[in-house]
Amino acid sequence: EIVAALSDALSDGPLKGRKILVTSGPTHEPIDPVRYIANRSSGSQGTAIANALRALGADVIFVTGPAEAARPDGVKIVEVETARDMHDAVMDALPVDAGVFAAAVADWRVASASDSKIKKTKGGLPVLEFAENPDILAKVSQLAKGRPGLVVGFAAETDDVVENATSKRQRKGCDWIVANDVSPETGIMGGSENAVVLISEDGAESWPRMGKAEVAKALAERIASALGAG
Amino acid sequence: EIVAALSDALSDGPLKGRKILVTSGPTHEPIDPVRYIANRSSGSQGTAIANALRALGADVIFVTGPAEAARPDGVKIVEVETARDMHDAVMDALPVDAGVFAAAVADWRVASASDSKIKKTKGGLPVLEFAENPDILAKVSQLAKGRPGLVVGFAAETDDVVENATSKRQRKGCDWIVANDVSPETGIMGGSENAVVLISEDGAESWPRMGKAEVAKALAERIASALGAG
Repeated sequence: EIVAALSDALSDGPLKGRKILVTSGPTHEPIDPVRYIANRSSGSQGTAIANALRALGADVIFVTGPAEAARPDGVKIVEVETARDMHDAVMDALPVDAGVFAAAVADWRVASASDSKIKKTKGGLPVLEFAENPDILAKVSQLAKGRPGLVVGFAAETDDVVENATSKRQRKGCDWIVANDVSPETGIMGGSENAVVLISEDGAESWPRMGKAEVAKALAERIASALGAG
Repeated sequence: EIVAALSDALSDGPLKGRKILVTSGPTHEPIDPVRYIANRSSGSQGTAIANALRALGADVIFVTGPAEAARPDGVKIVEVETARDMHDAVMDALPVDAGVFAAAVADWRVASASDSKIKKTKGGLPVLEFAENPDILAKVSQLAKGRPGLVVGFAAETDDVVENATSKRQRKGCDWIVANDVSPETGIMGGSENAVVLISEDGAESWPRMGKAEVAKALAERIASALGAG
């Protein structure tokens, strides 16, 4: 009953009645039964965004890869492993009022993952052939029917952050890109802070370096404004 | 003082004064600053073995990759990421009375890991070239000088477990292979139990399926016997 009361109280925020999808975490792409390709996304920014949206009253669906971060509270959680799993879970979650695609989705997978462990043979090295994964952000952004009113992508860049992220926004067709510099010297990937540039049709807006919870709160408030709910 | 007293008490076991190296966990091999190749080893068997050896009084050095499992208590811990890091840490740890190589070391790495994030380009798929990692088990087993008195390797097999593990023992030159069947249907990889076959010069001995702590205890007792300390 306490949980229900709290849940009702939270639902009184500016995003009350709005359904928002958040993707988070890495994906894992199998090579064989024991090996896989992963990435260093901890999922902590995605969890923080889901919590911030929930705090403003949104009805959040959280689709997450195998992330280290704690899962958000009071939201619907869908656990997936590969990019293809995530694609299917996202499509199942539509329609939504807004989609925030914070997951670090693998661009490619091993084309024919082996059912047996690849053996080490004398001097023999594996040849892995890759196939492109579904581009979830582009696909949702370009939906002819049922496109969310606001689509927010993320870009983790190591070079030319604003230029690469601006080009990504145009290529994908999303409304905003939340870009961050993950070059190893920043310590951001896997860390607790984020240095964000928000790319929209109005240009590039650099946010001061702040904790991931504050980035999440600022982004959730922007989303509420954009949905006319601020 | 309590810790010191406990440590003294533990050191009174049959492995008192024996220095034993245990490797554990997966290795991570970078593809670029954000992506890497991993494997599903949780490190829980390695941690259990280190704890069991410590409980018999051994002086344990624990070299571990980025494993999920809790670290063992009362042992020296060296954290590494790649197979090459692990190789260097193992060589630094020698000489030892026995080496237990429970880590799931990547056989190969990406030959020229990229310093920048590999970009997604239209239709372009990455071509990854691989290089062989150092074979830590073979190298230690075949040391002309300073070989540990007992070298124990592990084999995670998905097919023909005894045949593959017996061949592995001969190829590497180690004394024992602890082989287990990690085919997905057993649920062993990442699980809490292990179904072990111990391969030695005497042949193959199947152990009943049991918890990883019991496997560790049985193995530690065997090691104590083999070192003439049982």
